[in-house]
Amino acid sequence: MEGMSFSLSERQRKALSRIVGESHVLWREEDLLVYECDAYTLEKHLPTAVVLPGDPREVREVVRFCATEGLPIIPRGAGTSLSGSVAAVGGGVVVSLSRMRRILSIDPRNRRALVEAGCVNLHLTQAASRYGLVFAPDPSSQGACTIGGNVATNSGGPHTLRYGVTTNHVLGLELVLSDGQTVWLGVRPEEGDDAPGLDLRGVVIGSEGMLGIVTQVLVRLIPPPPARKTLLVAFPSVTEASRAVSAIIEAGIVPGALEMMDELIIRAVEATYQFGFPQGAGAVLIIELEGVPSGLDRLAAKVEDLCRKANACEVRVATTEKERNHLWKARKGAFGAVGRISPNYLTQDGVVPRSHLAEITGWIEACSKKYGVTIGNVFHAGDGNIHPLILYDEQDPDQVRRALAAGREILERCLELGGSVTGEHGIGLEKMDLLEKQFGAAELALMQALRRAFDPQGRCNPYKMFPSSRRCADFFPRRQIAA
Amino acid sequence: MEGMSFSLSERQRKALSRIVGESHVLWREEDLLVYECDAYTLEKHLPTAVVLPGDPREVREVVRFCATEGLPIIPRGAGTSLSGSVAAVGGGVVVSLSRMRRILSIDPRNRRALVEAGCVNLHLTQAASRYGLVFAPDPSSQGACTIGGNVATNSGGPHTLRYGVTTNHVLGLELVLSDGQTVWLGVRPEEGDDAPGLDLRGVVIGSEGMLGIVTQVLVRLIPPPPARKTLLVAFPSVTEASRAVSAIIEAGIVPGALEMMDELIIRAVEATYQFGFPQGAGAVLIIELEGVPSGLDRLAAKVEDLCRKANACEVRVATTEKERNHLWKARKGAFGAVGRISPNYLTQDGVVPRSHLAEITGWIEACSKKYGVTIGNVFHAGDGNIHPLILYDEQDPDQVRRALAAGREILERCLELGGSVTGEHGIGLEKMDLLEKQFGAAELALMQALRRAFDPQGRCNPYKMFPSSRRCADFFPRRQIAA
Repeated sequence: MEGMSFSLSERQRKALSRIVGESHVLWREEDLLVYECDAYTLEKHLPTAVVLPGDPREVREVVRFCATEGLPIIPRGAGTSLSGSVAAVGGGVVVSLSRMRRILSIDPRNRRALVEAGCVNLHLTQAASRYGLVFAPDPSSQGACTIGGNVATNSGGPHTLRYGVTTNHVLGLELVLSDGQTVWLGVRPEEGDDAPGLDLRGVVIGSEGMLGIVTQVLVRLIPPPPARKTLLVAFPSVTEASRAVSAIIEAGIVPGALEMMDELIIRAVEATYQFGFPQGAGAVLIIELEGVPSGLDRLAAKVEDLCRKANACEVRVATTEKERNHLWKARKGAFGAVGRISPNYLTQDGVVPRSHLAEITGWIEACSKKYGVTIGNVFHAGDGNIHPLILYDEQDPDQVRRALAAGREILERCLELGGSVTGEHGIGLEKMDLLEKQFGAAELALMQALRRAFDPQGRCNPYKMFPSSRRCADFFPRRQIAA
Repeated sequence: MEGMSFSLSERQRKALSRIVGESHVLWREEDLLVYECDAYTLEKHLPTAVVLPGDPREVREVVRFCATEGLPIIPRGAGTSLSGSVAAVGGGVVVSLSRMRRILSIDPRNRRALVEAGCVNLHLTQAASRYGLVFAPDPSSQGACTIGGNVATNSGGPHTLRYGVTTNHVLGLELVLSDGQTVWLGVRPEEGDDAPGLDLRGVVIGSEGMLGIVTQVLVRLIPPPPARKTLLVAFPSVTEASRAVSAIIEAGIVPGALEMMDELIIRAVEATYQFGFPQGAGAVLIIELEGVPSGLDRLAAKVEDLCRKANACEVRVATTEKERNHLWKARKGAFGAVGRISPNYLTQDGVVPRSHLAEITGWIEACSKKYGVTIGNVFHAGDGNIHPLILYDEQDPDQVRRALAAGREILERCLELGGSVTGEHGIGLEKMDLLEKQFGAAELALMQALRRAFDPQGRCNPYKMFPSSRRCADFFPRRQIAA
C-alpha cells in the first residue's frame, strides 16, 4: 500500500484541467513533492495529482469526476497539520483549498462571518477586528493555517482555555460529499443561531477530512474582552509552575490563556525573538487575565499571590499592547524557534487531567534520559494539553527511532493517567493504532458506521484515523487509480 | 398508525419483571395514562408498557429483551419535553430513567460530575454548589427535568446566552444502543478534557432519544461568576424593549442572561409570585450582568444608559441575593403562572436572528388578532429565541384549531426571517413536517443514514423528527408487538 505512486492518464488530466484550468492541475513529480507530507514529516506519500479548484462549483465537479473514475480524494488546507492527516497514502487526488481563501461576508450585527474553507485564520481575525470582533480559535500556526483545516482538526490555541475549540465557534458549513452532492450542515448564513435535527455539523468538525470536503464555513465572531492583563511569571522548575497552574484553576479563576514553556523552549524563543525572558528560569507561565479594567488589578494580585506561594521567582506584567503582542508572538513562534537549535523535531500532542501535570512532566524528563533525546516543553497548561518537542536529526536513523519511541512512551503514559493521545492535532496517520487503546471495538465500529453514512466507499481521505485502516481494506480501487 | 394500543403478553410481562422487578413494570391502562404524552398535550399515545430500570445493567437487559421481541423502545426522563419527543406513537415500551437519579461522583478539582441520566438538573447544581460550582444549563423546568432529558433536547435556559447549551457542558455519555450494546462516547470519567476521533457524543446530544438510551452523563461544572448585577427594566412596549436588546448586544456586552416578558406574562407572573413587577409596562427585560465586583457598576451604568435611550420607563436593580432569586423564580415560573389565566396553552419555540426580534413580535401580535387567540411572550431575547404562549381551551375544538394555526404561522415566519422552528424544545412529533422546510432532501437523507448507523432498524423512539416518519415506514413491527 505504502510507497506507491501512480501517474494520471492524459484523459484524466485533461478532464480535470477542463474543470479548474490547466495551471491548477499538478501532476509532474517535481510539482507534487511539496504535497508529499504535512508538518508530520516522518512519513511521505506522493499524491497522484493535486487540483486547486477556485470555487465550490469546481470542487463539486472535481469530486464528481473522481467519483466516476474511482479516485480517492484528499482535502488539504495549508498543510500545517501535525499528524499526517493530509498524506495521500496509496495515492489519490489532493484537493487543495488554497485558492478559495475569500471572506465572503462579515455580519457584525449578528456577529458572524462566512468564509471560504481556504481562508487563513489570521486574515479572518484581521478583517473582523475592523468591527471590534475576533475569531476565537488561535492556533500557533494561525498566520498560515486555514479555517477549513481548523474545522478538520477541531483546532484549539492558547485561548482555548476560556473560549473553547473550533466546534464552539462554527455555526454551519458547506460540505461536498464524496459523490459530489453538496449539503449545508448546521446553521445557514441567513439563519438564527440554532439548527434543529441531528448535529451533523458537529460530527464533521474534527473528522480530519474523512467525511467530505468543507468548502464554506459560517463562523461565530466574538468581541475581545474589555481589558486584559498579561503576566509573565518565572519559576525555578516545571514542577513548581505546574503547582501554580493547579492553584489558579482551583481558586475558580479562568484566565483567557495559561501557557507554560520550559527552560529549553525559553532559550530557543529568546534567541529568536529577544523578548527578554528571564534566563535561567526552569519554566515560565504566560497568564492572560480578562475582564473589565477595574476588576483586573485585584484578580492579578490574587494570581501573583498564588504564584508566589508556588515559589515563583519573578512576576512581570506586560504594560503595553505592544509588549503583549511581542510576548504572544514569541510564544506562538516557539515551534519555529526550536528549528534553530535542532535539524528536526517531533511535535507531540497529548492531554492529561490538569491534576496530573506535574506527574507527566516528570515522566517526560525520564523518557528524555531513557532514550537519550532532548525534549522541550510548551504546554497549554490550563487545559492539561502538553506539547513535548522531541529533537532529532533525520540523517541519523537511530535518533529517529529513539525520538519516536520516546514520543510513544509519553502518549501511553498520558492514557494511563486518564488522558488522551491528542488534544488538537488529530489522529491522522501517526496515531492510528493509539485510537484503539483509547476506545473499545463498539465505539470504533460506530465511528466507522457513521463514516460510511457520509462516504459509503471510504473514498474520502482513506487510510487514516481508524486502526483497521492500515491493516485491512479501507478502500481498494487500485486498478482504477492506474487506469 | 396512531391511536393504537397493544397489551403486553403475560410472557413478556414476566420476562421484564424478572429484570427490573414486578413493581417496576407498568402495563395496566390506568398506570399507563400518566405516560400518554409529555408537556405537548395535544397528541396522546398510550404506550404498550412502561419499565423503570434501576441501573445501566437493567437498561441493557430490558433493551436486549425488546430487541429479541421486536418491540420499539422510547426513552423518557421527567416528561417535561414540549414537542412530543417521548410519545409512544404506535405503541412500544417506554423506558423511564426516573429511578436512575443518582449523582455518582463530583470531582471539584477537574470540575466535573458523573450522574445517572435520571438525575434532576437542579439536584446536580445544588450538590455542586457545595464545591462552589454549578451545571450551567438552567431550563425553566430545572426543578423537574433530568440531565438525560437535557441531553436529548440539547436544552438551553436563560443563561444560554453566555454559557451555551447542553452540548457545551457534556464531556461524555454512556449510551445503550437498540441492540443492547453499550458504548461510552466522548471523554470518559477518568480522562482529560479531549477525546479524539469522530464526535459521536455531539451527535447524540439533541437526538431526542432516537439513537439509543443515555444512561450516564459526564458533565462539566463551572464556577459561578465572582459577582452579578441583575436589572429589571420596564418599557412601554415590546418593540422598545427589543430595540434595547439589539443596542446591548451591539455594544459588545454579553450579559449572563437577557430575558423579555410581555404585559400578559407580567400580569400572570405577578398574580402568582407577587414580585412587584411594574404593572402597566408593555414589556420588561431581566438583564443579568456578570464579572468582578468592581467592574459591574460601570457596566450596569452603560446598560442602563442604553435602555433609557431605547425609552425605558423604569430601571430597578436587585440589591440582595434573595431578591435576585425571587426574580428568577418568577421568570422561570412564567409558564406555570399562565396556567392560572387559561385552561390550556401551547408553548411555542422558535428562533429569529436577533436583528429581527421587533419584527417577529409584530407578527405574533398580528397572528393573535387574525386567529382571535390570546398570546403571551417570554423570550430568551439575547438569543433571539422566542416562546409565544398561545392560550386556548381544549374543550373547544375551534379554539384548538385556531391556536395551532397561529403557532404554525409564527414558526413559518421565523423560517422566512432566517430563523429556526425550534430553539431548544426539539422537533418531536409536533414539528416533523417543519424540518422539511428547514433542510433539503440531501441533509435529511444524511441524518437518516446517521440514525441507521446507530439503530439500523429504527426501533429506538420511532415516528419522530423526520418528515418521512409520519408518512412512510419508519418501523413496522406490528405483529411482533402484539405477539
